[in-house]
Amino acid sequence: MTLESIRYRDGSLQILNQLLLPHQTSYDNILTVQDAYEAIKSMKVRGAPAIGIVGCLSLAVELQAGAGGDDPVAFIRDSLYHLTSARPTAVNMGRAARELIEFAENESMEKNSEQLRESVISWIEDMLERDVNDNKKIGNNGAQHILSGIPRESVTILTHCNTGSLATAGYGTALGVVRSLHALGRLKRVYCTETRPYNQGSRLTAYEVVAEGIPATLITDSMAALTMREMNISAVVVGADRVVANGDTANKVGTYQLAIAAKHHGIPFYVAAPSTSCDLSLESGRDIIIEVRPQEELTSINGVPIAAKGIDVWNPAFDVTPHQLITGGIITELGVFLPSELQAALTGRLTAL
Amino acid sequence: MTLESIRYRDGSLQILNQLLLPHQTSYDNILTVQDAYEAIKSMKVRGAPAIGIVGCLSLAVELQAGAGGDDPVAFIRDSLYHLTSARPTAVNMGRAARELIEFAENESMEKNSEQLRESVISWIEDMLERDVNDNKKIGNNGAQHILSGIPRESVTILTHCNTGSLATAGYGTALGVVRSLHALGRLKRVYCTETRPYNQGSRLTAYEVVAEGIPATLITDSMAALTMREMNISAVVVGADRVVANGDTANKVGTYQLAIAAKHHGIPFYVAAPSTSCDLSLESGRDIIIEVRPQEELTSINGVPIAAKGIDVWNPAFDVTPHQLITGGIITELGVFLPSELQAALTGRLTAL
Repeated sequence: MTLESIRYRDGSLQILNQLLLPHQTSYDNILTVQDAYEAIKSMKVRGAPAIGIVGCLSLAVELQAGAGGDDPVAFIRDSLYHLTSARPTAVNMGRAARELIEFAENESMEKNSEQLRESVISWIEDMLERDVNDNKKIGNNGAQHILSGIPRESVTILTHCNTGSLATAGYGTALGVVRSLHALGRLKRVYCTETRPYNQGSRLTAYEVVAEGIPATLITDSMAALTMREMNISAVVVGADRVVANGDTANKVGTYQLAIAAKHHGIPFYVAAPSTSCDLSLESGRDIIIEVRPQEELTSINGVPIAAKGIDVWNPAFDVTPHQLITGGIITELGVFLPSELQAALTGRLTAL
Repeated sequence: MTLESIRYRDGSLQILNQLLLPHQTSYDNILTVQDAYEAIKSMKVRGAPAIGIVGCLSLAVELQAGAGGDDPVAFIRDSLYHLTSARPTAVNMGRAARELIEFAENESMEKNSEQLRESVISWIEDMLERDVNDNKKIGNNGAQHILSGIPRESVTILTHCNTGSLATAGYGTALGVVRSLHALGRLKRVYCTETRPYNQGSRLTAYEVVAEGIPATLITDSMAALTMREMNISAVVVGADRVVANGDTANKVGTYQLAIAAKHHGIPFYVAAPSTSCDLSLESGRDIIIEVRPQEELTSINGVPIAAKGIDVWNPAFDVTPHQLITGGIITELGVFLPSELQAALTGRLTAL
């Protein structure tokens, strides 16, 4: 069974309520743009790609029911602005809004309201399909690359944070590679770090692998190096918030430490990300600003204090892994590339390895 | 102010109830050996050195009140057997019991009951004093060694787990080094890892440094490498459960990963431990068996589940850091030694660096 975080059919949308995970599996109906706005705002759905998809699909649901009447463009524009304001830092929703508004304005030149609604719904459904397909390509490309040096045996993977169905439109990036290996019958086991302080590993990744019957073991972040030494890890695969031109990669805090430990043990270290997460406008990771989040993420769990009162806390949300430590490669839907090849590959000057 | 985990005066003993930390600071009276047995069993006091000290001090309190009557040796023997059974894996209580029973039996040859009680009380008070003094020597030796290459500036230390007053008779080992640097006015800041899964860093170390006004910052275990890169860390200092003949060191899980990250950044890595924690009977760390603890330590906090149900867990309690990664040295009460010098130093064939 594949875990569905987003359930969509013509005119109907449900999302898995992530606020109740991992303790309760419950789907909420999203009937309107306002429902989606509230689900995003309250973090029932999270992960920048997933936010963009759910926002746009809620618009498709309303358009299917005839929303916008004689002026669908105005309705589309207002809805997308409203959705973007729910979590303005999630870039995918904003990018989709810009593209979709431009598309709707162009379509409105030559189509009537009913035809325009159908075009926009198709555009949104294509977006959903493309996102899942890109993730499946990432999964397959990564699996083949990891297996290329290992003719027969099953492999053991170590991953970090949540990069699965719950963070994307479906399938996932780094966890998509794990899914592909499992589908090929070549995954012995995946080790998942709990990923403090927000516990995406123990709450979300653990939930996904249990739901799909993928053989998996949870460890604390501090056990990763020991796991590499004792458990015959074949590769470390992580996701990315942003990959810049030289291959330096910003990702969930702890990634840098994993990359150092992988290097120490001679284990290939991979970053899995769609080409849309690559930002060639920045030359190196030094240009990325580290976001520092609230102290309470470390000092309490579900509102209950777990640390000594009065202690200072540093809570950077991510770190930057220098390209030299990405020894396996960067896995995209276009292929797997060494950091030094990324720029040429994405600008069409190099084909996949 | 110095944090007191054990308050002892002639005939009177109180312990800081660690079950209530970090949320409540409360001392419990220990009036009898049975009180100490229950405090150890219920983990109001923890840490092998602290358990040994509290057990013996409770005996001293009873002897002060005349316990044992005309046959104090039998009372002493029964009491120490009982205390040892509270947590039989805590080696220090067992070792103290063996030594103290032998001492009492010898003393009884030439002393009457009243004199014997006084001798045994003195022996126990000496043990308390020796333990604290050894820790202070460790603190001073470590501080001097770290500062020897840094003539004027203050230093920034990174440490792991709890190795302070709460785990020893007082002052601490690795945290003792931090205390000494602070007392010398040369500590800029100490970074403390929260130390998953049992959170000794966020609960106990954070409590100690807040109580004493030591400038400190709490981080997750996954942030250590980033902290080394961004925060100008002068040295990493950790404690030890056991140091074997070649210098390989078993300590709280996560220590190995810290040592790899320190090496990557060219930061000296120190182990601080009394010579009684050095076990020359084992040649290398390969001979140390890794204790695996219950899964629930990762999947719940205070009985509340925090991970997805059904996930497998690996929970090794400690790891072994190979001596090659202990680049700063092993800090003992006798001096600071390179791993390769440890055996000779402890057997009297080498003096301190």
